[in-house]
Amino acid sequence: MTNELRVLIDGQWREADAASVFQAEDPSTGNRIDRVVPVSRWSDCDAALSAATKAAHELEQVPSEKIADFLDGYAASIDLNWKAPVYLAHEETGLPSKPRLAEVELPRTSDQLRQAAAAARERSWRRVTVDRQRNLRSCLGPIGPVVIFGPNNFPFAYNAVCGGDFAAAIAAANPVIAKAHPLHPGTSLMLATMALPVIKKLNLPPAMVQMIYHLEPETGLRLVSDPRVGAVAFTGSKAAGLALKEAADKAGRPIYLEMSSLNPVVFLPEGMKENTQKWATELADSCTAGSGQFCTRPNLVFMIAGPASEPFLGQLAAAFKTREPHTMLARLVRDHLNHSIAALHKAGAEIVTGGKNIDGPGYRHENTLLRVTGKTFLSAPGEFQREAFGNEVLAVTVANDQELLEVLNHLEGNLTASIYSSTTGADEELYNRLAPLLRRKSGRLLNDKMPTGVAVSPAMNHGGPYPSTGHPGWTAVGIPAAITRFTALQCYDNVREERLPPCLREA
Amino acid sequence: MTNELRVLIDGQWREADAASVFQAEDPSTGNRIDRVVPVSRWSDCDAALSAATKAAHELEQVPSEKIADFLDGYAASIDLNWKAPVYLAHEETGLPSKPRLAEVELPRTSDQLRQAAAAARERSWRRVTVDRQRNLRSCLGPIGPVVIFGPNNFPFAYNAVCGGDFAAAIAAANPVIAKAHPLHPGTSLMLATMALPVIKKLNLPPAMVQMIYHLEPETGLRLVSDPRVGAVAFTGSKAAGLALKEAADKAGRPIYLEMSSLNPVVFLPEGMKENTQKWATELADSCTAGSGQFCTRPNLVFMIAGPASEPFLGQLAAAFKTREPHTMLARLVRDHLNHSIAALHKAGAEIVTGGKNIDGPGYRHENTLLRVTGKTFLSAPGEFQREAFGNEVLAVTVANDQELLEVLNHLEGNLTASIYSSTTGADEELYNRLAPLLRRKSGRLLNDKMPTGVAVSPAMNHGGPYPSTGHPGWTAVGIPAAITRFTALQCYDNVREERLPPCLREA
Repeated sequence: MTNELRVLIDGQWREADAASVFQAEDPSTGNRIDRVVPVSRWSDCDAALSAATKAAHELEQVPSEKIADFLDGYAASIDLNWKAPVYLAHEETGLPSKPRLAEVELPRTSDQLRQAAAAARERSWRRVTVDRQRNLRSCLGPIGPVVIFGPNNFPFAYNAVCGGDFAAAIAAANPVIAKAHPLHPGTSLMLATMALPVIKKLNLPPAMVQMIYHLEPETGLRLVSDPRVGAVAFTGSKAAGLALKEAADKAGRPIYLEMSSLNPVVFLPEGMKENTQKWATELADSCTAGSGQFCTRPNLVFMIAGPASEPFLGQLAAAFKTREPHTMLARLVRDHLNHSIAALHKAGAEIVTGGKNIDGPGYRHENTLLRVTGKTFLSAPGEFQREAFGNEVLAVTVANDQELLEVLNHLEGNLTASIYSSTTGADEELYNRLAPLLRRKSGRLLNDKMPTGVAVSPAMNHGGPYPSTGHPGWTAVGIPAAITRFTALQCYDNVREERLPPCLREA
Repeated sequence: MTNELRVLIDGQWREADAASVFQAEDPSTGNRIDRVVPVSRWSDCDAALSAATKAAHELEQVPSEKIADFLDGYAASIDLNWKAPVYLAHEETGLPSKPRLAEVELPRTSDQLRQAAAAARERSWRRVTVDRQRNLRSCLGPIGPVVIFGPNNFPFAYNAVCGGDFAAAIAAANPVIAKAHPLHPGTSLMLATMALPVIKKLNLPPAMVQMIYHLEPETGLRLVSDPRVGAVAFTGSKAAGLALKEAADKAGRPIYLEMSSLNPVVFLPEGMKENTQKWATELADSCTAGSGQFCTRPNLVFMIAGPASEPFLGQLAAAFKTREPHTMLARLVRDHLNHSIAALHKAGAEIVTGGKNIDGPGYRHENTLLRVTGKTFLSAPGEFQREAFGNEVLAVTVANDQELLEVLNHLEGNLTASIYSSTTGADEELYNRLAPLLRRKSGRLLNDKMPTGVAVSPAMNHGGPYPSTGHPGWTAVGIPAAITRFTALQCYDNVREERLPPCLREA
């Protein structure tokens, strides 16, 4: 087999112990890419875990300044050598090189690494607590080797070998075993290649950053269950996330998941009268940007049937029809979307516009608007909350306030929930009844704003109630909070001064 | 049936929907106690969950000052009316009224409630984070109804209706469904009775505090899986904890467990020569106090065979023989201990002293010292880490430094790990090799000190790696950290000023 990729274990690019191989396609042409991804057997995971365990012990002794230097150095290398990863990521994902990959996602990625570096230096994530009277001291410390499963939709910013989870895990001095996404292997290889010289130059443990590409499902379950694992982070589909969660939970391994979210948006009636066109345009922008391939795309919107609702839906449909859909990340992604739309239709949703795959050399799907009444939604609320990753939205028109509340009460946990309302105060009474309900069902509550676009800010919450994640207390974006996912609480009771970690000493 | 207890649901003491009944004994006499505990059917749980859901919504709107007033008022009532609960707890648990119940545990309990009240007022647990530039604001908020399973060994301080988990859950404005321990039902009834007038006086939601006593296992599993549950807290045995964890994990409900810990203590050789008698006495005190019925009792100790180890074990055995064992919490607790000791013996441990139940009117067990070589320990490390709740310790004598490290490397996660060493520096080299290993395997690392005695301090960690708990990042003791277990991260993105929760507003 020509050009079969090697896995990165303990500082070496090794031939994988491959059970089989996988070959990605260029989604804009459907042509196979000349890079063959090994599907690793357990022995690759086992070797990575052993090396990571040793690296974890070594990293415990490394000054946080040096960890920060690694993160900064890696960021600088990505910024300097941006052309090759952008070229590869465009080929492998179909995402536009400019502005998306080169001007938005890549700078965001190096910025995340730098924010993590600053947090590693500044150390507030350690939450130092000292009780001098009792000589009792505690702080957060590294949790151990972190296994990261990266998603397909952000080849840089959420990549297992350089993205947000990676930055957070490393900042807390944990080695990372990156399970790169097999749909952008060349991109991941290019990024990992930039990390290695920085590790070497700083004389850090070589197994601080390791990478494999692909695993058969049972090998993945075994990996997340291994007692050498400190924690697992996963971003991806609900089905895969729940399977990994079950295995990790059973073995007592902490797992953080970002799985699935429909990001409901509610448009209140008085404001809709005033802003019909504006709101329809904002929604259309948010649904169709990047063909809706974002965790925070709005898939489900609610409005009370009234004088403005039909014009609103008409303008939304018109916008959907006139916008050219982007290439999707892969054939499978497009087919999943098409399958979900068919299932929503079968359950009783009317297809207003779109609904079909687009012929042509690339994998694209029509911008799709479906609609359903509140009454029909209530007949099968689970079915109408089916995951539909892509440029699709289901509009639910309800009869009145009461039905709106009833429908929202059936929502599952989401990353976000948005409420658009009048600025005159005319929707305030209804807002006050809805907001507490949506607050409990979401991690981030928005006003008059679409949920797409997740700012890397200390105040961000990219998390939410189950099943959008596994626990509503953690966020995957936002430093230092995201770092604390990869820590254990370490208490020192009557421990002699010279034996304490530096952050807990008196001097 | 006379004197069958009623369950507390939605502010009312209701006749339970009982599948059967359970009757506790006075463990110091073996006589049945004249209070019959209902084993609730699902309908009791369902009613409690519905009422708690409503109360959770109401509590979201209650000023934190009022939550604090409740906690303070409840603490004051417990302090004022201490006699009846102490009387009942002594009868139901066999624990001494003085000093233990009246002078140690009861004041500790009201102190915990007061610390939680102070935290509710002070609000640092909310971790307010504001990004003004992006108008992005986040804080921790209530997670929803909290189901608490209290243990048998602390009828006040860990009681589901007034203990540490209760105080933490309430401080974050969550209603509590207390699953009281059926071995001290009268005590729990008396405590809950003190909470009610305070709730009423402050006009708080009546379902803020609810209580049931007993459930069949499948009902308990259903309870922790219910989508209305915000979080679960459990303190008790590993078997029960793991069953609840599996059910809650599967349903995506956060669960905090404090299950099982052997609290290893390592005595280093040079220090042992200097402190043979002192250390033997400290260990004997820690193992036999309260018949070792503490989560942090030392069950497993390690030493290198040498000139001081046999005198040390001889002095320990002598102390065990001369001390009068206390009444244990219940017949079942004593029988479990006896069964574990038999299993350790069968696996190859020698019984140095003790090993048998004590005849007599109360349920007592001999102070028991077992010993095993490092080599034998390594033949079945899992078997020798069997849970043995009570006045028992297994001493492992290893051949040398290397074997000590090897043996410790097989330890599972524990709440605590202690290292005793010379103050002259003679053990320092060995300490430095052991400490990182024990650090990773414990939540609290101690020097020259027994692990029993868990100070209620912000710097405490009463948690640790699996299987001592379910996640190494959380503590059950120590405010405000313990409160954050019962919170969700709530982000507000572009939300209008007047709609923000008070702690996130500009004014």
